Amino acid sequence: MLRPSLRKPNQMRPVSMETAVNKWAEGSCLIKIGGTHVLCTASVDFNQPTWKRMQHKTGGWVTADYSMLPRATDMRKSRESLLNDKRSMEISRMIGRALRSVVDMEALGKNTIYIDCDVIQADGGTRCAAITGGFVAMSLAVRWMMENERLMENPIREHIAAVSAGIWNNELILDLDYEEDHDAEMDANFVVAEGGQFIEVQSTGEQHPFDKSQLGEIMDMAAVAAEKLINLQKKVLE
Amino acid sequence: MLRPSLRKPNQMRPVSMETAVNKWAEGSCLIKIGGTHVLCTASVDFNQPTWKRMQHKTGGWVTADYSMLPRATDMRKSRESLLNDKRSMEISRMIGRALRSVVDMEALGKNTIYIDCDVIQADGGTRCAAITGGFVAMSLAVRWMMENERLMENPIREHIAAVSAGIWNNELILDLDYEEDHDAEMDANFVVAEGGQFIEVQSTGEQHPFDKSQLGEIMDMAAVAAEKLINLQKKVLE
Amino acid sequence: MLRPSLRKPNQMRPVSMETAVNKWAEGSCLIKIGGTHVLCTASVDFNQPTWKRMQHKTGGWVTADYSMLPRATDMRKSRESLLNDKRSMEISRMIGRALRSVVDMEALGKNTIYIDCDVIQADGGTRCAAITGGFVAMSLAVRWMMENERLMENPIREHIAAVSAGIWNNELILDLDYEEDHDAEMDANFVVAEGGQFIEVQSTGEQHPFDKSQLGEIMDMAAVAAEKLINLQKKVLE
Amino acid sequence: MLRPSLRKPNQMRPVSMETAVNKWAEGSCLIKIGGTHVLCTASVDFNQPTWKRMQHKTGGWVTADYSMLPRATDMRKSRESLLNDKRSMEISRMIGRALRSVVDMEALGKNTIYIDCDVIQADGGTRCAAITGGFVAMSLAVRWMMENERLMENPIREHIAAVSAGIWNNELILDLDYEEDHDAEMDANFVVAEGGQFIEVQSTGEQHPFDKSQLGEIMDMAAVAAEKLINLQKKVLE
Amino acid sequence: MLRPSLRKPNQMRPVSMETAVNKWAEGSCLIKIGGTHVLCTASVDFNQPTWKRMQHKTGGWVTADYSMLPRATDMRKSRESLLNDKRSMEISRMIGRALRSVVDMEALGKNTIYIDCDVIQADGGTRCAAITGGFVAMSLAVRWMMENERLMENPIREHIAAVSAGIWNNELILDLDYEEDHDAEMDANFVVAEGGQFIEVQSTGEQHPFDKSQLGEIMDMAAVAAEKLINLQKKVLE
Amino acid sequence: MLRPSLRKPNQMRPVSMETAVNKWAEGSCLIKIGGTHVLCTASVDFNQPTWKRMQHKTGGWVTADYSMLPRATDMRKSRESLLNDKRSMEISRMIGRALRSVVDMEALGKNTIYIDCDVIQADGGTRCAAITGGFVAMSLAVRWMMENERLMENPIREHIAAVSAGIWNNELILDLDYEEDHDAEMDANFVVAEGGQFIEVQSTGEQHPFDKSQLGEIMDMAAVAAEKLINLQKKVLE
Repeated sequence: MLRPSLRKPNQMRPVSMETAVNKWAEGSCLIKIGGTHVLCTASVDFNQPTWKRMQHKTGGWVTADYSMLPRATDMRKSRESLLNDKRSMEISRMIGRALRSVVDMEALGKNTIYIDCDVIQADGGTRCAAITGGFVAMSLAVRWMMENERLMENPIREHIAAVSAGIWNNELILDLDYEEDHDAEMDANFVVAEGGQFIEVQSTGEQHPFDKSQLGEIMDMAAVAAEKLINLQKKVLE
Repeated sequence: MLRPSLRKPNQMRPVSMETAVNKWAEGSCLIKIGGTHVLCTASVDFNQPTWKRMQHKTGGWVTADYSMLPRATDMRKSRESLLNDKRSMEISRMIGRALRSVVDMEALGKNTIYIDCDVIQADGGTRCAAITGGFVAMSLAVRWMMENERLMENPIREHIAAVSAGIWNNELILDLDYEEDHDAEMDANFVVAEGGQFIEVQSTGEQHPFDKSQLGEIMDMAAVAAEKLINLQKKVLE
Repeated sequence: MLRPSLRKPNQMRPVSMETAVNKWAEGSCLIKIGGTHVLCTASVDFNQPTWKRMQHKTGGWVTADYSMLPRATDMRKSRESLLNDKRSMEISRMIGRALRSVVDMEALGKNTIYIDCDVIQADGGTRCAAITGGFVAMSLAVRWMMENERLMENPIREHIAAVSAGIWNNELILDLDYEEDHDAEMDANFVVAEGGQFIEVQSTGEQHPFDKSQLGEIMDMAAVAAEKLINLQKKVLE
Repeated sequence: MLRPSLRKPNQMRPVSMETAVNKWAEGSCLIKIGGTHVLCTASVDFNQPTWKRMQHKTGGWVTADYSMLPRATDMRKSRESLLNDKRSMEISRMIGRALRSVVDMEALGKNTIYIDCDVIQADGGTRCAAITGGFVAMSLAVRWMMENERLMENPIREHIAAVSAGIWNNELILDLDYEEDHDAEMDANFVVAEGGQFIEVQSTGEQHPFDKSQLGEIMDMAAVAAEKLINLQKKVLE
Repeated sequence: MLRPSLRKPNQMRPVSMETAVNKWAEGSCLIKIGGTHVLCTASVDFNQPTWKRMQHKTGGWVTADYSMLPRATDMRKSRESLLNDKRSMEISRMIGRALRSVVDMEALGKNTIYIDCDVIQADGGTRCAAITGGFVAMSLAVRWMMENERLMENPIREHIAAVSAGIWNNELILDLDYEEDHDAEMDANFVVAEGGQFIEVQSTGEQHPFDKSQLGEIMDMAAVAAEKLINLQKKVLE
Repeated sequence: MLRPSLRKPNQMRPVSMETAVNKWAEGSCLIKIGGTHVLCTASVDFNQPTWKRMQHKTGGWVTADYSMLPRATDMRKSRESLLNDKRSMEISRMIGRALRSVVDMEALGKNTIYIDCDVIQADGGTRCAAITGGFVAMSLAVRWMMENERLMENPIREHIAAVSAGIWNNELILDLDYEEDHDAEMDANFVVAEGGQFIEVQSTGEQHPFDKSQLGEIMDMAAVAAEKLINLQKKVLE
């Protein structure tokens, strides 16, 4: 049975990453994965976050904020509801966790990098786009810090990228768009590091419990896709 | 003395308006005036606003929400502070007032149009860009309503556009960018209708009180610029 | 055609300003313009505002808060809605801007003056009453600071007053009350300095675009009225 | 030992109640007890409160809101802190409870009366002034409802007034002002009905536990003072 | 006429206090009075509260927070409504006031004790249970401070306990449960010190004004009950 | 190397589930897993949630709220911070998702079940305890609905339980307590259905990326533990 998008099961949508799209931010990237467009900016603050300073901790921090514009989706949402949206908070925490996992906080010094991921247009897979594009913005901000002699060495240990996958109509498929996501029996998000190892796995089968071998198969598919995204990241960062 | 932007006193920055930039919104326009980029979407709701329904009023409504992305400016602002920002609320009210002034609320029927103006990048004149681009998004949404037989006649009476101007270094200048705005002795915003008449004048001379003739001269300059913007609106709406 | 208030086009309502109406405040003024009653208090804080201190700036600050009591108007409003009222925020910003325009912030030293304008009863023109009465409260607070040797010189450069005017039934009229304001085709607020020059012009013709000469005529009318208010301010401050 | 106010132990401060001080409210009263000035308005809503309607209850409701203006006290308080002030909420509940205790909710019909008590200037005993003045405002609103044929009979059963008293320097004193209140060992508030019986007793001896006979003596003193206030209420309501 | 609970007028429900019920808190007590179960924890913070530090005051502080779990009562309440609940705020203030009345703030040093009273199950008299159990938790926290050499002497001067009483069906009854409380004509809460003297009296006769002698009789009944609770406190603290 | 808790790698802490611990709730369960104590109540509302009713959907809903008491952890947290805690919101969403996955929403009729999970004491694995105990509370509420003829058939399809596991010191371990969790290189939470299939997998290796085979091994360990918990659920529900 054909996917609504007519793609093959393991086929991603076209991906582009445009850098330096914001004249003020130390790093920025507009990532487009099919109809999903996320503007990622990285802002450098030469201070520790308050909670680290209060606890007399060493090193820096990376934190992320994910939000939708009011009309990023089919139905307009009010700004008040967007600010307190539980789903957005959960995703913000996931993005921050993912990006921090590849940064040496001591090597970052007493600095904070804020990653803002604003979803301009949503069509499935926004959290994965935010992580993949947020990594590029963060990398550019770190490069800016090194060029401005705010950092001596690169605190980023390796690349990461994120992809979604799921079970739709009993078939394992990659990179679900909004329409496919809506009908999927199980959907999963993966944060993958350069070597193909996993930083985070989130897999939910509300309509359809799954077993170890199914999850394993999907992980293989995700690892292949993540490698391609990481290669693209490297190309735009050159 | 030269303007920091090297422009002539009555010279605007390059302006572009791109339409249909959002796959979900009934109308949308990305307006760029120099380094100021504002994404305007128009969302149609087939209901009156709550307050009109409660008061058993006839007709529809147009309302606007202006907001900055966290890193639209030189310094990152937190989302919490942006949501409750008094300046943004004042500007939202101004945009809504301006757009409503050319819409026949009875002819709009019991519908609401939400205009969201998100400042992707700010470099002076964001409220004027939002009004000028918001008008285009609103016009497209009205066209969509007519094509989908939600409206029998066009409730928009005429075009409007907005421009800023001010006194800088004792000289009257048009379309101030961020750097010029910062040092201006007086700055003003004008909402102008098609025939060159004024819908709104906001003029503040915190550093430099002004008189009737100065305001008159600036109004003349603004009217000329607004006419050019309205011509551009007409072109992109063709 | 007669105004609802039976006044002549350029006739203001009776104005009174009572000073020292609050035993705690460093300056206070109860201003009544017809049925509009605004209680203005000026509170001196011997500290810079937080944002100035954080940015290591010199000098002081003047800030204003405008609010209505729940039953200042025809319909009771809840306190929650009043605190977050966008119109009140816009007016608070306008009052602060107006008062700051005549104060030398360096001469004020590292002090903050809070102007609270509480509308006890509203009948049109509350923002203008707040600015005119707020100026008196601020002047008294500055006098208190000088008498208590907190200031060596008066940081207030000149008087300001504010008046409203508009177009009603195609006629230019001064100082609109609630009923007139409701039907006006265009309404405007002016902050005027001692010499007759303008600090701020806000003019909105939602129902009726206006041109340069109409605005000019109204400005002339406003300047005359402001001069009278400034004379009254001087009298009560003697 | 003399009271700071030089009053006799059982001497109240001068009391005045001015009615019809607000042109919009259905009932209003400005009560002054010494330096304590509270503006009380009563607003009639021809609807039950939401919670009564949701629970399909019969009858009406009386509710009260107590708040200070920012500079009602020695130190300015911000409006945000005032809105969420726990002390104000406690007092609002007490005022509402007291006023409801003498109103027949069935006889009030499906109407709500909002009592707003805004402390213009505070000098001790504000909650008692609010109850005593709030009763007058409520009575006027009920009279307005009867005159406008919104009520057939008066739902108010009897008058109430409130007074404070306490132990200061081991002496029982009546109607404490701010300075006395600050040093009191025990302070109490009493809501008293027409016949001298008590609706509410709140007595706190944080610095000085008290016994039954002391409380009894203070109750006697409060009953006498309340009778005088009720006589004054009757006079201004004639 | 029999009480709904079949108890005698002056009969309390069975009372138990279990200590050390929380592995993290410096002091804790689960108090059960019939169907009313309140978990009290005392948390020690080796800092003054912010407001004391800002005002350069000496000594420590005790503060209390009372809250219900969402389903502590017959109807579930949302957490948002619970956090801003005016009744809970009023009770929190009462608990804090009561506990502070027997603590020497200077002897407590620059420390703060937070008393959290969470109502696990409510069946009338929760505020009294919270004060009585909160005293035990506070005592244990103080003991912990002395054992850990954070305090040289015990700052607690004496025991306190709280009981409720009221008039039901014209009879004076002790310790009302939820059903009795609902129908009571008058209800009162008493905070009583070791010697039988009163720290706080709160008595409300919304349905039934009361006089001095009735209040006196109830106070006698409350004093007897409080003595029993204090004896139980001493036993569990041994 | 020994675990801090001295347990074997695949050894859970002692588990108990006490039912009917709340006299008001339709279902309740106090679950203790070692030092982690979570009180779960299920509250039945004979209405659809608002959002379902607004969208004219059929069937019912199950929703969950997870929260900590202020002193459930080593450091006290304020109630304000707890209410808006992003981590708690993320966990609330996970609990609701897990419980809904085994409920037939059509068979539930137009009813809503609220699951409140209040962490009385936290010592690692609170979200898993909340899901496992929340299932018991939900089952009891459904039984109550059937006994009271609010439901004709049981809408719960099968049991679920949740367990945590992780990599600590390079070893795969089950059911991490607070101390172990703090040092773990990778930690994961699993929601498992009766047949051993997975409803949700959340696995994070911030300190230590993991591969498919490691995740598979941990899944096997989790499935065995979940089966034991489900057997215990069945026993307490008999």
